[in-house]
Amino acid sequence: MKVLVTGAGGYIGATLVNALIERRALGAARIDALAAMDRQIPALSSGVEPMVGDLACAETRRRIQAFRPDVVFHLAAVPGGAAEQDYEAGRRVNLDATLGLFETLAETRAAGAAPPVVVYASTVAVYGVNLPDPVRPDTPLRPAITYGAHKLACEIQLADFSRRGWLDGRSVRLPGIVARPRSPSGLTSAFMSDLLHALAAGERFVCPVGPASTAWWMSAQRCAENLMQAAVMDVRQADAGRAWPLPVLRLSIAEVVHTLAEMFGPDRPSLVSYEPQPGVEAVFGRYPVLDDGAARALGLRDDGTPQALVRRALGQTID
Amino acid sequence: MKVLVTGAGGYIGATLVNALIERRALGAARIDALAAMDRQIPALSSGVEPMVGDLACAETRRRIQAFRPDVVFHLAAVPGGAAEQDYEAGRRVNLDATLGLFETLAETRAAGAAPPVVVYASTVAVYGVNLPDPVRPDTPLRPAITYGAHKLACEIQLADFSRRGWLDGRSVRLPGIVARPRSPSGLTSAFMSDLLHALAAGERFVCPVGPASTAWWMSAQRCAENLMQAAVMDVRQADAGRAWPLPVLRLSIAEVVHTLAEMFGPDRPSLVSYEPQPGVEAVFGRYPVLDDGAARALGLRDDGTPQALVRRALGQTID
Repeated sequence: MKVLVTGAGGYIGATLVNALIERRALGAARIDALAAMDRQIPALSSGVEPMVGDLACAETRRRIQAFRPDVVFHLAAVPGGAAEQDYEAGRRVNLDATLGLFETLAETRAAGAAPPVVVYASTVAVYGVNLPDPVRPDTPLRPAITYGAHKLACEIQLADFSRRGWLDGRSVRLPGIVARPRSPSGLTSAFMSDLLHALAAGERFVCPVGPASTAWWMSAQRCAENLMQAAVMDVRQADAGRAWPLPVLRLSIAEVVHTLAEMFGPDRPSLVSYEPQPGVEAVFGRYPVLDDGAARALGLRDDGTPQALVRRALGQTID
Repeated sequence: MKVLVTGAGGYIGATLVNALIERRALGAARIDALAAMDRQIPALSSGVEPMVGDLACAETRRRIQAFRPDVVFHLAAVPGGAAEQDYEAGRRVNLDATLGLFETLAETRAAGAAPPVVVYASTVAVYGVNLPDPVRPDTPLRPAITYGAHKLACEIQLADFSRRGWLDGRSVRLPGIVARPRSPSGLTSAFMSDLLHALAAGERFVCPVGPASTAWWMSAQRCAENLMQAAVMDVRQADAGRAWPLPVLRLSIAEVVHTLAEMFGPDRPSLVSYEPQPGVEAVFGRYPVLDDGAARALGLRDDGTPQALVRRALGQTID
């Protein structure tokens, strides 16, 4: 089996590539070749083929066609905050290059063979704001940022390609993934990661949402495991438009701070000052309960407990 | 006020242009200039500016920018059946050229002025098949043809452009519009129009769905009136993602045949033979009740009665 990861130089992409190297298998199938694509790729383990290039370029697409992947994890994206600032960049990568990848893969598929599996990293931003409680499979999708609007459009096209038998698509909607490196990521949700890093290190942190704010959390390690599960899960009986939210831990900031205090010391809560920004709270501060039963039934999982979330997020253990 | 109609050479487009010429106003605003765009335009009434061109061409977009419309009715599309056969053509027109038009209009808007109103002719094909009864505003949208998938993607982007304040978008989902000319239209739903033409003329008709099949019907005349209403309706309070289904008459084939018999003679039912095609019945034979209350509250309307539908559809009266 040949596997391609786009966005492999990013935080989730690198975590996924490492997990794939460790296992060298997806489900029961051995991975014979693993290609890691991005515009820039850091040093890779042996056995991984670097594929440096821009998905928007015809030359890059030709290399994908030559590689002929059986499974593609499509993570390459302009993040939400950056795409909101730069519409053109978001359109070019999050819509055009993504649809171009789907078309390239559809053209690549061998006659008579099973269509390539495409695991597409979508986002909970497809739901929008002012959400009902709980969010259900039939909750209307009304993205409130361009990033979510483009991701939703691509979910729809991937479902259509799957209906045509051109691809075997599985869109999974990622929640806030922690703990990203502290460098600027272009993600509005980056404060969730920064909170963990700051309190683990015993540093002060100014939180842009209040302590009662609730968000959907997942560690990058669990996210990588879910992406791998999405590639092998049996979706033939699934009636969900080929898109699922990943199961999440729904935690308030206060609960996360409490967990960090348990793990790193009782002084931690005093390090946090709250300066809620209405724009950030509207998008990242009011996540209700998520009805993720359909995703759980397919073997997708959350981190289990807040403690396990923090441990995995900060790389203290990988289990 | 300056008004642009794309797809003006098509059946609905021509009906709309005629209605706009007749009124020379939209709501309380006088129409000072009316441009009719298509790749081919038939002879137009005086006072209409023909704009022959392909929306996918940069030159055409420059002419739109020079015209600076206040209101755009975007009807240009590759129809459903044709887009299913020719993916590339559907993508080029129904996705790329449509998004290109939205972007062109967003760039055209004058600083400080109200954004251009865009009435976008979407389709009930965004709902998909195996629909719940009734179809409600929160019924999940799972298009089962590529035409519906592209139209839905554009609805989402138009809502996003409206959120950004770049455009003032209103997507209306058109049901089966009758009675189209009998020439091949590329629409799978063309049989709905052909049934009316055949029985009005006293000709035999082979129906590709059974007599109990239900569909959503609207005359082109009522459709044009609804498009004009969509341009002026007050959507500020509307919480519907800027997309609404048009109110419809839900009629079985048997009810339509009964109405035609009342109007054209009791022999009419005997002219129809039924040869149901499963593929056509799945998409066009099982439309449930449509909860269109939100659209009605905004002043959108159906044809009233089956008799009025047929009269308007066949051009016997325009009221």
